[in-house]
Amino acid sequence: MMIEQMTGLIDKVRQSAPIVHNITNVVVTNYVANGLLSLGASPVMAYAKEEVADMAKIAGALVLNIGTLTADEVEAMIIAGKSANENNVPVIFDPVGAGATPYRTTVSQRILEEVNVSILRGNAAEIANLVGENWHIRGVDAGVGNGDIVELAKKAATKLELVVAITGKQDIITDGKQVIIIENGHPILTKVTGAGCLFTSVIAAFAAIESNYLLAAAGASAFYGVTAEKAIQSLETPRPGSFQIQFLDSLSLTSALDVKEKANVSI
Amino acid sequence: MMIEQMTGLIDKVRQSAPIVHNITNVVVTNYVANGLLSLGASPVMAYAKEEVADMAKIAGALVLNIGTLTADEVEAMIIAGKSANENNVPVIFDPVGAGATPYRTTVSQRILEEVNVSILRGNAAEIANLVGENWHIRGVDAGVGNGDIVELAKKAATKLELVVAITGKQDIITDGKQVIIIENGHPILTKVTGAGCLFTSVIAAFAAIESNYLLAAAGASAFYGVTAEKAIQSLETPRPGSFQIQFLDSLSLTSALDVKEKANVSI
Amino acid sequence: MMIEQMTGLIDKVRQSAPIVHNITNVVVTNYVANGLLSLGASPVMAYAKEEVADMAKIAGALVLNIGTLTADEVEAMIIAGKSANENNVPVIFDPVGAGATPYRTTVSQRILEEVNVSILRGNAAEIANLVGENWHIRGVDAGVGNGDIVELAKKAATKLELVVAITGKQDIITDGKQVIIIENGHPILTKVTGAGCLFTSVIAAFAAIESNYLLAAAGASAFYGVTAEKAIQSLETPRPGSFQIQFLDSLSLTSALDVKEKANVSI
Repeated sequence: MMIEQMTGLIDKVRQSAPIVHNITNVVVTNYVANGLLSLGASPVMAYAKEEVADMAKIAGALVLNIGTLTADEVEAMIIAGKSANENNVPVIFDPVGAGATPYRTTVSQRILEEVNVSILRGNAAEIANLVGENWHIRGVDAGVGNGDIVELAKKAATKLELVVAITGKQDIITDGKQVIIIENGHPILTKVTGAGCLFTSVIAAFAAIESNYLLAAAGASAFYGVTAEKAIQSLETPRPGSFQIQFLDSLSLTSALDVKEKANVSI
Repeated sequence: MMIEQMTGLIDKVRQSAPIVHNITNVVVTNYVANGLLSLGASPVMAYAKEEVADMAKIAGALVLNIGTLTADEVEAMIIAGKSANENNVPVIFDPVGAGATPYRTTVSQRILEEVNVSILRGNAAEIANLVGENWHIRGVDAGVGNGDIVELAKKAATKLELVVAITGKQDIITDGKQVIIIENGHPILTKVTGAGCLFTSVIAAFAAIESNYLLAAAGASAFYGVTAEKAIQSLETPRPGSFQIQFLDSLSLTSALDVKEKANVSI
Repeated sequence: MMIEQMTGLIDKVRQSAPIVHNITNVVVTNYVANGLLSLGASPVMAYAKEEVADMAKIAGALVLNIGTLTADEVEAMIIAGKSANENNVPVIFDPVGAGATPYRTTVSQRILEEVNVSILRGNAAEIANLVGENWHIRGVDAGVGNGDIVELAKKAATKLELVVAITGKQDIITDGKQVIIIENGHPILTKVTGAGCLFTSVIAAFAAIESNYLLAAAGASAFYGVTAEKAIQSLETPRPGSFQIQFLDSLSLTSALDVKEKANVSI
């Protein structure tokens, strides 16, 4: 029942084409916008303190991504986040590289304190660093930890009172009580810059049309992973450049039925 | 006669490879630079207040695009615009999302007051908002209005004393008196982020080599639309990712003869 | 002997996947990150004054690229550069457009004074402008000079006490005494924005694993040029868009053996 609901969400996204307001990093902004357009959402990128409150207000969801944060951008994120909160717009937060530098950790904590975040998406290292667990992070990549990732996700969700999506080989999505594990996708995603950031923005597109954020994040994860698998099938040999383009194509092609048939979900 | 002149302009662009100085948004800057390189122009991106006057001065045309404006960038646009004016460099303005937030509307009006803009390119909603018409804008997309777009374009051109290009299913180009309508292109362009922004920069490349800006904008529109059609013909199924790349390829391939044969122009 | 060492370096890059911290321009940041990921390095992009010292410290190499410099970014570059120097992290500097505006020249000179740069990569015009030679630069492209490029490279290397890589039809790499000339690559690279910037970051990936910077730069040049040739061979007709993607693919495919067999090196 829940799986049917999850897999059907892409149809709702395409019907309503929600506006997703992204305050994201300069590395991935083009790829994120193209990915959202391709799957059927309406991306908006707006960063100025003077306008982010107005833009967040009219959006279906707000993405805060600190991949290339600056002090000005952080101020804009706080302003946008508060406006989203006041207008019941869900906020999806991607703490890129939290733990890699003290500044990223501090900023992430500040955002979590001042803004009511609905869904937090990151790799295991980033999430661990945010809740004070010891986890080695290598640059902005996931690194390797010894902890139990499911326990880490539950702990973070409970402590921060939000839905956590730890993505990687397995995507673990939890509100602290219920845990959904999705195992789709392909390792080549780690060779495309912004694959994680786009994932966050796809979750936002789903959260814009589904207020059960556990379901929204899980639905986005299944859709994203199945899309990667479909892209791989269309390529003779998976290579980073051609995969990147094929993945954009596949985002426009993957149907609710595809997701239903191929999603590998454990609840 | 005018159509011959229009369709032949791409040859002049390729012969002189004009420098196009873009102060554009972070989402599209890579795609715009690649598009300009591919068709045969020389893109320059420069944003710092300390250098934009110097860069605008040596350019063949200056593009101001407020897609991800910040207060600093707006200052740089004004400085660059004034330098372009003093040096007889045409200024092409793309008021991305004017009307979507009050800030964008205010900044757009300020640019139009302080800088002598030669060509204004936008969708119908953006142009309507700039001249005080009531038009619904959805995020940064065109939205739907009930007005007569040709009348809107003429009104804007007359009021602002410049050439207006309202682009969409039809491109309407006018100096307030003469109206040129071009109907080429393909709907998939709306699925590629920056397709409108690149269009603006292509108009700039044409304005750099043709001082009749009505002709320059019309020539760019015909070239751009025919190029999209050629790209579509090269693809088995049009999809956003592969179209994006094929369009870059086609920008290098579309000839003056192609434009002459396929341009659908009403004068 | 030296050629064997040079051509084998890509294996060491892939084995250690060095973190390359890039403070680069907004036009190319996505392409640079994808290129580094594809060849096997770990890119990090971080710009904030508050964190660049921490990020540079944990990197294998630091890239400073002034393609779209702003005053804030220049401050961050100086801070990052000093941190890299203190931590024995090599700094690779790309003075994009030095000479095109006085600001770029001044900033480039300031960086070279305040930061101990290991490798300087640019086109002939940029390098000439930095050492006070008269060379015409056109926008941010190379322009045409009459000087002897080998002499120019040697002069710059001696004067600035670093390794210079002047890239173009031939890549000339020198520490002021020894000169290595590599003639690989393809002219279509000039139609892809960021091809030069990515080259700089590839040199950084090589410098992260080889402390003989002359060897590192030469190895990167041979790898880069051979990769371009392999990409061209995979395409029926070379076109800017499809080449761009194929080049990303080829960065993941080109082996040490390929480089050894195809590198055209004069020492």
